[in-house]
Amino acid sequence: MTCARTHRYRVTLAERLLHPDNPTLATQIGGRRALFVTTPSVARIYGQEVQALIDRHGLRAELVVLSCSEQHKTLSQVAWLCEEARRRGLDRTGVLVGIGGGVCTDIVSVAASAIRRGISSIRVPTTLIGLIDAGIGLKGAVNFAGKKSFLGCFYPPEAVLIDPAFLRTLPQQLLRVGLAEIIKIALVCDAELFELVVAHGADLLTSSFAAPGEPAKRVLWLSIQRMLEELEQNPYEDRTYERLVDFGHTVSPLLEAATDFTLHHGEAVAVDMALSATLAEELGLLSARDRGRILASLRAAGLPVHVSRLDAALAGEALREAMRHRGGAVNLVVPVAIGRATFLKHPSEIPERALEAAIRRLSSEPAGASPLMLPALAEPPLG
Amino acid sequence: MTCARTHRYRVTLAERLLHPDNPTLATQIGGRRALFVTTPSVARIYGQEVQALIDRHGLRAELVVLSCSEQHKTLSQVAWLCEEARRRGLDRTGVLVGIGGGVCTDIVSVAASAIRRGISSIRVPTTLIGLIDAGIGLKGAVNFAGKKSFLGCFYPPEAVLIDPAFLRTLPQQLLRVGLAEIIKIALVCDAELFELVVAHGADLLTSSFAAPGEPAKRVLWLSIQRMLEELEQNPYEDRTYERLVDFGHTVSPLLEAATDFTLHHGEAVAVDMALSATLAEELGLLSARDRGRILASLRAAGLPVHVSRLDAALAGEALREAMRHRGGAVNLVVPVAIGRATFLKHPSEIPERALEAAIRRLSSEPAGASPLMLPALAEPPLG
Repeated sequence: MTCARTHRYRVTLAERLLHPDNPTLATQIGGRRALFVTTPSVARIYGQEVQALIDRHGLRAELVVLSCSEQHKTLSQVAWLCEEARRRGLDRTGVLVGIGGGVCTDIVSVAASAIRRGISSIRVPTTLIGLIDAGIGLKGAVNFAGKKSFLGCFYPPEAVLIDPAFLRTLPQQLLRVGLAEIIKIALVCDAELFELVVAHGADLLTSSFAAPGEPAKRVLWLSIQRMLEELEQNPYEDRTYERLVDFGHTVSPLLEAATDFTLHHGEAVAVDMALSATLAEELGLLSARDRGRILASLRAAGLPVHVSRLDAALAGEALREAMRHRGGAVNLVVPVAIGRATFLKHPSEIPERALEAAIRRLSSEPAGASPLMLPALAEPPLG
Repeated sequence: MTCARTHRYRVTLAERLLHPDNPTLATQIGGRRALFVTTPSVARIYGQEVQALIDRHGLRAELVVLSCSEQHKTLSQVAWLCEEARRRGLDRTGVLVGIGGGVCTDIVSVAASAIRRGISSIRVPTTLIGLIDAGIGLKGAVNFAGKKSFLGCFYPPEAVLIDPAFLRTLPQQLLRVGLAEIIKIALVCDAELFELVVAHGADLLTSSFAAPGEPAKRVLWLSIQRMLEELEQNPYEDRTYERLVDFGHTVSPLLEAATDFTLHHGEAVAVDMALSATLAEELGLLSARDRGRILASLRAAGLPVHVSRLDAALAGEALREAMRHRGGAVNLVVPVAIGRATFLKHPSEIPERALEAAIRRLSSEPAGASPLMLPALAEPPLG
């Protein structure tokens, strides 16, 4: 029995997407019944515009609002959304339109993958992480049984529509955590992007990516391009367990879980990158100068480079967990220069002493910005 | 962005699969951590054999038991299984082995598709419906919000292992409902298979498919072959909404839901086929003789050909639901001869009067066997 399937989708720049005269979304949806799914913040700022767009183009669409913090990335939220889709009569040709950050598009993707064994979804990322990372790929996931993204899917959207104007209304802190993912992709494959972030990062944060205009566009564009190039080589993660985009994503999932997801994903990624860079220097793989520049870029972005919850025990467990998750190899991504990285595959390449030394060093240096520490929230029961 | 993916799997005859000396399952699983998932009945009859097989081959496997009635085909059962997989340390290379009927392999497939965005699954069908239909394809689903199979996946298993010996311990009633699916596939594409069922059906039921030996094997083999041929043309149901295997599956989902799933799936399929055949005769598409043979074959198998819950309102709603589900066309499959069927695409091809006449006629003729009517069960809350 052979089952072959090919999906194609475009990540399109769609400026002024919510302007009532802009036909982009309406054209994409056409006559299909649609459910717009968004977050409380996006609804507060853009809810009226979305409704006006629906009315103006006569879309067969309704809008629902979903709590979209990392702590709400649960199976019960997916079940709620599926029930809404059922109640509002979405059939097999229905569309879910996720307008929000990574958590929103994650939940929407999981729901879309499951409803009637798969209906269409459109992603409209509104956060910086969403625009350049979580919102443009084909993955969806929810946290489960205390494990980050334990349940999920590979489920390509039919389209991703990018409007950088959403960044204008994004809180500074969410711009900072987005910068962590930009620095991530820059460090593993694009030195030019890193230099742009170093040169313009502060202005981009202050202006919410409005100024300086050209570098802002270029930073976003390069980040998206590099991410898509990396994803396209291995969209279902079944061709190799060596993924450069895993940089900063080995210790961070456990850090997030250990803090009940009060540490923001982007902050955990920053801490993980700082540790990986420091370890690389300890192992003689990265120059002290480059390690210094990496940590400086994180600190300049207002990101933490260390949190007290990170100790050798947690890091060790994270490496063991990575081996379970990456086909028996650790595949820790460490930078060897700005824009270039390598994989530490075997545990023997990561001596405990070096790991401990790296953590000790980070805990004695300035820790960077204090983490946001969102209020803790118990996972709601299913149903 | 292009995402292409190809899965291949084999449906293999594996006689005496649970015999401790049989290496088939152990070879398939290898050194991977596995979770065997089975039903209370299978555990009672074969649990010790499964455990002996695990011990004998030193498999890193454990056995869990899942309530697997249609009423238990719920998201909360999937969540429970995912939690078990998490608790027992299944990593990304882990395997779920479903040993049971269609509900069991359905739940296992949905869980496998979601755990870490997809781990492997092996299907070992133990019921007749499982062996020749539900257990050999790539679909999984759960009932949700009162809708049959509203949530689910297309998720190919890595292997399907067929051991007809499981039929020896299957209750007669479950053999009968399996025969409904055999008659289904025979009627739409294989006249030889239908004649085999007519000639040997009674003996196959009495002997639990042990005798007569050659026809028994041939009935199973032809059923599996025809089903796989139909599936392979359209594994993700995205190439066409005209699927011959939908025969008997248009009114039946609503009948099942309307009876709180106390009417068995195979019985609902039998009632649906009887209605479709009668409608075909009313419309002059099927001869009275062939319609008579079809209903006789169902009655001979101890299946109902009519239930009082089937009225014109339910049938009408089922046709509208089919249109929503099949891309705007009804695509009602009706037989035009033994082994050949056609699609009624447009509602105008199914005049209300003909539908009502067909139902009236069925309600005035012998209704065939009384349905099993399993005890009703409220859907358990999630979590």
